[in-house]
Amino acid sequence: MRYGIAIFPSKKLQDVANSYRKRYDSRYSMIPPHLTLKEAFEADEGNVGEIVSHIRNVAKEVSPFTLEVYKFSSFYPVTNTIYMKVRDTAELTTLHEKLNSGMLQHELKYQFIPHITIGQDLDNDECSDVYGRLKLEDIRHEETVDRFSLLYQLENGTWTAYETFLLGRDH
Amino acid sequence: MRYGIAIFPSKKLQDVANSYRKRYDSRYSMIPPHLTLKEAFEADEGNVGEIVSHIRNVAKEVSPFTLEVYKFSSFYPVTNTIYMKVRDTAELTTLHEKLNSGMLQHELKYQFIPHITIGQDLDNDECSDVYGRLKLEDIRHEETVDRFSLLYQLENGTWTAYETFLLGRDH
Repeated sequence: MRYGIAIFPSKKLQDVANSYRKRYDSRYSMIPPHLTLKEAFEADEGNVGEIVSHIRNVAKEVSPFTLEVYKFSSFYPVTNTIYMKVRDTAELTTLHEKLNSGMLQHELKYQFIPHITIGQDLDNDECSDVYGRLKLEDIRHEETVDRFSLLYQLENGTWTAYETFLLGRDH
Repeated sequence: MRYGIAIFPSKKLQDVANSYRKRYDSRYSMIPPHLTLKEAFEADEGNVGEIVSHIRNVAKEVSPFTLEVYKFSSFYPVTNTIYMKVRDTAELTTLHEKLNSGMLQHELKYQFIPHITIGQDLDNDECSDVYGRLKLEDIRHEETVDRFSLLYQLENGTWTAYETFLLGRDH
């Protein structure tokens, strides 16, 4: 099975993200707007109990925190992706580290840059155009994050939530 | 906010359901395959804490149970919906009742018939054709259900999981 770990922000922020994703994100229908805490990884379904125990311990050790979106940014020219940049906080860094350690240690493809994708797989011109317009927009937003989710991917590429984990809580 | 409560069955069963939904279900991209425990309802976002407390108590009181799919069926002529019929069990009835009582009491549009939709909004001829073929197929399947999810709907009609609840567990 292919698993991943993500934060789903508030409905309000997801609706804003979707207003862009609808036009610019090739994976719009695959998953709701999210901040990836751990990239997709393969794990045996029989090990999901152990994985969940590990994640519960991680969730317990990290308190709810403020998620701050403060600008649009792009991964161009590495990938033609446009995203809402999320302020890096101690909690996000800790969550990312703990969810990529121990039995969940995997080789990281990229450095961790907290973000909510709003466009991907754009061609060069469109990426440049859209980002050129968006970077002038003000999208400052703050909210409290108190949970994250373990997801798994179906054969059609969409993701289903397996379990939510509440931060700072004994599960 | 518009909320709903559903069971997401195993990846295996979701993949089977999607193989039909892709062609026949107008809401294919809105939500993964699921068994609805509580129809969509409106609730103030400020009350979600209370709602979650209520649901946690319900989850604690019901043990994990066997979900058995045993045939294809249809709601025609009430609606042109085709579904996998799920054996009604004491646990499903109890879950449905408790999730529609107390602060979660809402008028029920339909009698509770546990099912996993695989086609909807079909025209009469297609509904009849597809159901005619499917009812000859053998889809017997059993699996254990140990969780369900509270979801909320985004402005684009898709659903995001807010929280999962483990059956028979103190949260």
